[in-house]
Amino acid sequence: MASVEPSVVDPTLRDQLDIVIPTIRNLDFLEMWRPFFQNYHLIIVQDGDPSKTIKVPEGFDYELYNRNDINRILGPKASCISFKDSACRCFGYMVSKKKYIYTIDDDCFVAKDPSGKDINALEQHIKNLLTPSTPFFFNTLYDPYRDGADFVRGYPFSMREGAPTAVSHGLWLNIPDYDAPTQLVKPAERNKRYVDAVMTIPKGTLFPMCGMNLGFNRDLIGPAMYFGLMGDGQPIGRYDDMWAGWCIKVICDHLGLGVKTGLPYIWHSKASNPFVNLKKEYKGIFWQEEIIPFFQQVVLPKDAVTVEQCYLELSKQVKDKLSTIDPYFTKLSEAMVTWIEAWGELNSPDSKAADYKPSKVGTRAAK
Amino acid sequence: MASVEPSVVDPTLRDQLDIVIPTIRNLDFLEMWRPFFQNYHLIIVQDGDPSKTIKVPEGFDYELYNRNDINRILGPKASCISFKDSACRCFGYMVSKKKYIYTIDDDCFVAKDPSGKDINALEQHIKNLLTPSTPFFFNTLYDPYRDGADFVRGYPFSMREGAPTAVSHGLWLNIPDYDAPTQLVKPAERNKRYVDAVMTIPKGTLFPMCGMNLGFNRDLIGPAMYFGLMGDGQPIGRYDDMWAGWCIKVICDHLGLGVKTGLPYIWHSKASNPFVNLKKEYKGIFWQEEIIPFFQQVVLPKDAVTVEQCYLELSKQVKDKLSTIDPYFTKLSEAMVTWIEAWGELNSPDSKAADYKPSKVGTRAAK
Repeated sequence: MASVEPSVVDPTLRDQLDIVIPTIRNLDFLEMWRPFFQNYHLIIVQDGDPSKTIKVPEGFDYELYNRNDINRILGPKASCISFKDSACRCFGYMVSKKKYIYTIDDDCFVAKDPSGKDINALEQHIKNLLTPSTPFFFNTLYDPYRDGADFVRGYPFSMREGAPTAVSHGLWLNIPDYDAPTQLVKPAERNKRYVDAVMTIPKGTLFPMCGMNLGFNRDLIGPAMYFGLMGDGQPIGRYDDMWAGWCIKVICDHLGLGVKTGLPYIWHSKASNPFVNLKKEYKGIFWQEEIIPFFQQVVLPKDAVTVEQCYLELSKQVKDKLSTIDPYFTKLSEAMVTWIEAWGELNSPDSKAADYKPSKVGTRAAK
Repeated sequence: MASVEPSVVDPTLRDQLDIVIPTIRNLDFLEMWRPFFQNYHLIIVQDGDPSKTIKVPEGFDYELYNRNDINRILGPKASCISFKDSACRCFGYMVSKKKYIYTIDDDCFVAKDPSGKDINALEQHIKNLLTPSTPFFFNTLYDPYRDGADFVRGYPFSMREGAPTAVSHGLWLNIPDYDAPTQLVKPAERNKRYVDAVMTIPKGTLFPMCGMNLGFNRDLIGPAMYFGLMGDGQPIGRYDDMWAGWCIKVICDHLGLGVKTGLPYIWHSKASNPFVNLKKEYKGIFWQEEIIPFFQQVVLPKDAVTVEQCYLELSKQVKDKLSTIDPYFTKLSEAMVTWIEAWGELNSPDSKAADYKPSKVGTRAAK
């Protein structure tokens, strides 16, 4: 392991990390995660019908927000939060007051490593987030900050401090995160390959970010983690995390922050319906052929030095360059601005915390 | 596995690949590789004292060149081939007439995969070279052309053809390829982590290329695989493969070719002496702090469409931009030109093949 500055941070981040879960169903899946999640605070974002009651297993410390809460808390700005789409999860990032976020889907279970041991996904994300990234030069032995690894011969010494890590993107065993056409062509394919690596996605390279198993440093990149306009009333779905991934990557590159991918794996239990997915995705599938080149060419001005500034600049460029594809992108660019305004309101020192009380709370079981 | 065009290529490349081995000692290590190498042709480049006899185990089909051969074949142009440094291996790339090259050091043994099975490193390199690369967008499930993998959701469909693969960079279990300072600080560190992945190094990203376990497509990138001026009479060593790596990467990026790294592993048996290494490396260690930014900013002109044209253009930029570091770079830039001239002579249709007869040949055992 390359040497890293000693840190006084509690390595479990118990009081500095919120787990955000978007859901429409009872959270029985948490039973499996109890040994790993019970000491953390959960922010549950209930999608769909707000009158439905979501059951949370006993003993978890949580707050739950439904659509009524979102509308009450954000008022007209609630328009930037998607409905009937897991993109609504980003509301949880906004109301959190913690430095770190881990978000996971409710069909993700605990995976096992090749030795048969349960993988503590959260612990690995925290390791990824608390050690630097290496976006400026590729290290062939992967993450040099892991035990038993280091920078290889030829790695410039001046770059060995790395960059602060903003995002940790985890992977999935069993059901891979395929698009609808690939799901249709290969319905039986399962991801069985456990790749024991964490790596930094190099500066200047885009990647498809999946929101299923994702950690990030909210202080470093939070305001850019907007999952866009998807689902109800929108012409597109299943591109929420992709959109966020493109945005955060160009902003991380601009600000000198790192994005890691690889470990940890979760066990993705259930493939979503490829026919439904195709309907949600099909516009994205051809739109992305223009969106990706746009993001590959984005240049942010030097005087954009905060995430908010970068994001507002990006929203302008989206309006200018992508609105020709479809009027949707004008709406999206406006929602990006609304999102930043709402983020600012909820996260300003004088925000009225009482106004965003959740519908429902639960507390940790006494020990 | 993402679909790839059916190919009529013999998947073993038996008659299309040469194995290049630089050495100063008897090649007993080949015994271990016999099951994997015996059907291939070897090009042995004997370094150091040409009067010394190098023993090659029985039954291998090989040709061996020593310094006298190199001088005889290249005449004054032999000055571009390093002496007393494994950089001399690139002479083997030049005299080969095959489409593919695999080069390996004589202290590299057969490694075992986690199931205990011997790894056929050559077979994996061939797989890497015969399937496309993905330099334009990152695939989070690594090489999409491997069995059981594919492009993930959000990967642009227009980019799924990938790019032709020019280079396959393999890794090392046991002794990691560390620089002298890291060797000194961590003499006992061993690489025990088998990472079951092959990945493309994204366009625009440099990497430290190690020559210990390396495959490449000679037709696509051969003339750029020059290992520079190292060893005897030069102020620097142990940067031969690094130099080649920086050059091939910027040229592959310019020409739209791919570079893969990851599998296969070999077992690197013996750490070289860190004190000797420090003496060889120390200039490189500080020079690289200027060389890397240079290569990160290199732009090749659009009308450079062959590897030779790119390489000659690069040699000019080396002279212009790096000679301020040390007069060595003027000499190196001139050697780059000499190398291309020599490559052209040996590889032109009317070259006199008889002139480059090796000192010694061996033939495959009858079956």
